[in-house]
Amino acid sequence: MDYDSLFRKHLDALRAEGNYRVFAELERENGAFPRARRHTDGTVSGVTVWCSNDYLGMGQHPVVLTAMHEALDRCGAGAGGTRNISGNNHDHVLLEAELADLHGKEAALLFTSGYVSNWAALGTLGAKLEGCVILSDAFNHASMIEGIRHARCEKRIWKHNDPRDLERHLAELDPAAPKVVAFESVYSMDGDIAPIAEILDVAEKYGAMTYLDEVHAVGMYGPRGGGVAEREGLMDRVTLIEGTLGKAFGVVGGYVTGSRDLVDFIRSFASGFIFTTALPPAVAAGARASIRHLKGSDMERMRQRANVAKLRARLDAIGIPHLPNPSHIVPVMVKDPVKCKMISDILLRDYGIYVQPINYPTVPKGGERLRLTPTPYHSDADIDHLVRALSDLWSQCALSRAVA
Amino acid sequence: MDYDSLFRKHLDALRAEGNYRVFAELERENGAFPRARRHTDGTVSGVTVWCSNDYLGMGQHPVVLTAMHEALDRCGAGAGGTRNISGNNHDHVLLEAELADLHGKEAALLFTSGYVSNWAALGTLGAKLEGCVILSDAFNHASMIEGIRHARCEKRIWKHNDPRDLERHLAELDPAAPKVVAFESVYSMDGDIAPIAEILDVAEKYGAMTYLDEVHAVGMYGPRGGGVAEREGLMDRVTLIEGTLGKAFGVVGGYVTGSRDLVDFIRSFASGFIFTTALPPAVAAGARASIRHLKGSDMERMRQRANVAKLRARLDAIGIPHLPNPSHIVPVMVKDPVKCKMISDILLRDYGIYVQPINYPTVPKGGERLRLTPTPYHSDADIDHLVRALSDLWSQCALSRAVA
Ligand SMILES: Cc1ncc(COP(=O)(O)O)c(C=O)c1O
Ligand SMILES: Cc1ncc(COP(=O)(O)O)c(C=O)c1O
Repeated sequence: MDYDSLFRKHLDALRAEGNYRVFAELERENGAFPRARRHTDGTVSGVTVWCSNDYLGMGQHPVVLTAMHEALDRCGAGAGGTRNISGNNHDHVLLEAELADLHGKEAALLFTSGYVSNWAALGTLGAKLEGCVILSDAFNHASMIEGIRHARCEKRIWKHNDPRDLERHLAELDPAAPKVVAFESVYSMDGDIAPIAEILDVAEKYGAMTYLDEVHAVGMYGPRGGGVAEREGLMDRVTLIEGTLGKAFGVVGGYVTGSRDLVDFIRSFASGFIFTTALPPAVAAGARASIRHLKGSDMERMRQRANVAKLRARLDAIGIPHLPNPSHIVPVMVKDPVKCKMISDILLRDYGIYVQPINYPTVPKGGERLRLTPTPYHSDADIDHLVRALSDLWSQCALSRAVA
Repeated sequence: MDYDSLFRKHLDALRAEGNYRVFAELERENGAFPRARRHTDGTVSGVTVWCSNDYLGMGQHPVVLTAMHEALDRCGAGAGGTRNISGNNHDHVLLEAELADLHGKEAALLFTSGYVSNWAALGTLGAKLEGCVILSDAFNHASMIEGIRHARCEKRIWKHNDPRDLERHLAELDPAAPKVVAFESVYSMDGDIAPIAEILDVAEKYGAMTYLDEVHAVGMYGPRGGGVAEREGLMDRVTLIEGTLGKAFGVVGGYVTGSRDLVDFIRSFASGFIFTTALPPAVAAGARASIRHLKGSDMERMRQRANVAKLRARLDAIGIPHLPNPSHIVPVMVKDPVKCKMISDILLRDYGIYVQPINYPTVPKGGERLRLTPTPYHSDADIDHLVRALSDLWSQCALSRAVA
């Protein structure tokens, strides 16, 4: 059997749909954030990154890098094993305490990524709690969807950000069944924010536990960077808060926080936690330094917010349509996969601006966009340059402008 | 509903079975491998680690640490995004080329861990290839089992390391169906090695592709550390070779290698690859340095093998029973969960020797063991000390000795 031809068939279909992905090859420039070197066939050029999820530039913050260098010197590179078999390092334990404190919870558990934390935690809750039903927001991230699929328990999909629809589902379920209401705070592609308090009201009314993914919010919202639930004073009402160390915290890894029993349960039963090498101590040390810094410093969040407001105002002034939302994500809507890719290519080639086009299946067809993420370290000149480039391209590509 | 009491019920059951896990808290001592500081309730004591999966001590090798420090200084901490959205770094591309070269394949693809690489690659193959059947060795690792479960395709479990039984299953299947024969080279708990050539013969006869997990073999076997398939001159016959960067290579991460189309297929469709933050550039740089070093240096493998032989001979001399196998893993059989845990506790407390007890479900009940992994850097004095400690304990715990 010619397996390669089977693989090619699938890849050709992807190409025909315009959804085949080519990765831009970057080399991040420490100390020059958000600048990077771009590698193309042996040549290197400078670009300004406008779509990083290192939202606050913490990946290059001296406190983070110092902590990582120090831990490398102290402990070496890897953890050397799974958490159970020789891989449980002091730095993991310290980081978990830091995370529990961040979210005001009794305990926290580290995973190799936010993806794995969602997949493993939801998969374990749904599979091990007898008769469990998971109620999942329709726009939940792939990692949550796969976790729920993995659980093979009953599931209900409720309308995005709609507590009324959630209530309709909850009312239909056996009151005695354990229930998990799973949702996100900031949804990464539209940048909209869940009505957390209303969702908690409904969940509590029906005795459901709540599972909140704050991946795009940790470090970014709340006086100590605890996320939207912290900002809104709701952390203690959420049963489980999940987050990542790879976005605003600038390193890599994921985690869940909750009661001691909840965390111990996931620690003890989740295959995706148990049977894998632990994160390097240096990664844990870097993430911890980042979290501690953002607990005490508001400067990055303030500058980031100012830049978001500046960019939005400038786009409005020239009628470049972007989704209004209450978050830090600025989705510039192109609504055409071919034009979206073309604009991104021209921005890169002619303007030194890197913003990855977001096409189906990451967003629905017709929702193609440039997802801009202004950071504290984009200068006014960077914003000027971006806005002028978009203005040129909007005219060249005959894209409609928003009515002022 | 009192969710914590549900969690406690499951945890209590685990405790009652003697399978509740308590992690030893270590702090690896760079430059003193295999030594670590152990933290217990605020006190710190020195231990010698005898169960590390950093098999060759590469996690503390200067070439690895230098590469990581350099990449931290050059690129900062994290990758800043998924591979598709701003997270594809030059260091990832270089590492993938290094891995493809290591296994003599056209291409390679990085994942956040070996666990995720197995889960995502098998899950994608089984789900996307129409009518696919996965034939899985009965002793395959949890990450492969979860990937196969995830695929929801037809599956067959064949008897461990038994090409005859594999053939029996293959002969029953539709010749036109795509088939994946999934197995490992070195099985981590027994340390036995698959009859790769015979398995390939059978798979080829029935037109099946082969999926080989070399997680416990990469860096360790073959003239360049390409694994058991390299040592036996079989790499080109295996369709997909999977490995980890977290064991003999000493860092963290996982990968698959294979034809360009195969790798592109997994890159394009695997949720666990697409929707997650890429590994830090410094991790990629460290892993690459480790691989390059072990491609050219046999010293670590030679010293490691000499220490394995030394330890085995010493155990034989005093009749401590250990599973004979052709690998680097020395399973000392205790065959009793309570004694196994007790010996491990006493070794730690009284002798400063850390070896985690391996109980059910990692091994079958009655197969409880101490899984020893001698490294190139265990001294003769370390071996003496371990052997004397085991001898004391074997007498104290009234465990039977092997007949000489
Ligand atoms: C909502 C959400 N949850 C989880 C993840 C996964 O986090 P990580 O990148 O740490 O795997 C992502 C994105 O990557 C995400 O957007
Ligand atoms: C056979 C096998 N495959 C895969 C893995 C997972 O690799 P990683 O630790 O890189 O997640 C392990 C152990 O952890 C393993 O023993």
